[in-house]
Amino acid sequence: MTRSLDVCLTPALIPLYNVEDYIVVVIDIFRATSSICYGIENGAEAIIPVSEVEECAAYREKGPGYLLAAERNGEVVSGFDFGNSPFSYTAEKVAGKTVVLTTTNGTHALHLSRKARKIVIGSFLNITSLCTWLRAQQGNILLVCAGWQNNFNLEDTLFAGAVIEQLKNNGFILDDPAIAANDLFQIGKNDISHYLSKTSHGERLRKLGIEKDIEFCLQIDLTTAIPVLDGEKLVKLV
Amino acid sequence: MTRSLDVCLTPALIPLYNVEDYIVVVIDIFRATSSICYGIENGAEAIIPVSEVEECAAYREKGPGYLLAAERNGEVVSGFDFGNSPFSYTAEKVAGKTVVLTTTNGTHALHLSRKARKIVIGSFLNITSLCTWLRAQQGNILLVCAGWQNNFNLEDTLFAGAVIEQLKNNGFILDDPAIAANDLFQIGKNDISHYLSKTSHGERLRKLGIEKDIEFCLQIDLTTAIPVLDGEKLVKLV
Repeated sequence: MTRSLDVCLTPALIPLYNVEDYIVVVIDIFRATSSICYGIENGAEAIIPVSEVEECAAYREKGPGYLLAAERNGEVVSGFDFGNSPFSYTAEKVAGKTVVLTTTNGTHALHLSRKARKIVIGSFLNITSLCTWLRAQQGNILLVCAGWQNNFNLEDTLFAGAVIEQLKNNGFILDDPAIAANDLFQIGKNDISHYLSKTSHGERLRKLGIEKDIEFCLQIDLTTAIPVLDGEKLVKLV
Repeated sequence: MTRSLDVCLTPALIPLYNVEDYIVVVIDIFRATSSICYGIENGAEAIIPVSEVEECAAYREKGPGYLLAAERNGEVVSGFDFGNSPFSYTAEKVAGKTVVLTTTNGTHALHLSRKARKIVIGSFLNITSLCTWLRAQQGNILLVCAGWQNNFNLEDTLFAGAVIEQLKNNGFILDDPAIAANDLFQIGKNDISHYLSKTSHGERLRKLGIEKDIEFCLQIDLTTAIPVLDGEKLVKLV
């Protein structure tokens, strides 16, 4: 049986796919899904993605076991424990805790994908572990790029292309966005950091002074944990 | 003053742009905008893009000066003079006539772009003429890919990348989709026909038996006319 390996380039295009037919991988390289992978690897009990800052704040009353993380347009929202910098997701900070997270793009993509057969989280940090698992599953795979404000961005698409690179010789049928993503990866793969430095989002993030975050998020196979959505929580896939 | 050169990858993403701020180029390489360029070059008085088959049919009562063209999912709709094969837009057929055209993707993109400062039509057939004109204008440019059923396709994006190739050394700022489109063009440019043969849409069109149309639509600079939207009609830019 043939399997489809498709790429949804922005959350705005999710309605074009029957997500029920897919295992979905949500991708928000700078920085939500990189930080989620790192946090789950470092022993966070769970990460709860919520859409709104208010939903996130509501967890404050539930006690000290919850860390509240809120990011909008690349910055920590005032009054929250932290945003989506991976350096906030170290073992010292998150082990044994539940993080409630709202971000501009990543949690939006997650929520729109809710009806998928299964939702997992991808980043360069866990790419090989993720691809090994994906290869062993049955059925179609949809790589959902969180993008930037509902539009296409290069970093998420390039990562989708990197996943396709590891999976493509297994009889998958690629849709046009998947072909494009993989071709872009061919152009960027020898120096991803340099390739992405020309993007508009990279420029935005540089202005926010988070070059170290960017560098961190482009590390390959630093982790092996695969975060999976279980009800409303992201937990470690076992 | 800097100018933006942006690419809207599918009609579904048009709402993300303030089209009022742009000169829009509508792109539907296989086959609507290629045929429109060819028809205007060959003396069609005007081409009227309409959204629905019924709107197109309504022109039947207006007399023999109107040719009715309707395409859905790559095929001529039964009862219409023709669809969007470029071979239907020869001088013998269209000179002095007004063509009323509805297509799956191209006219959809046109209608969603209506508020733009100006709307022109692009295809490989008129690319150099189009780019020469674009270079001489003021303000921002948005290349709108008609795509396939509201999703990304390779052929329209590759053409956007070809336009960017001709324009990019004139101080334009490119958004991420524009960077990606131009990079894909670098991969495909030496043999566009071969590159596109791997696309899903190319496969669909091959099944419809229109390989000759595809070959025709990939000819570069066969024409010089630039179709421009004037009210509800596409006419020759003078």
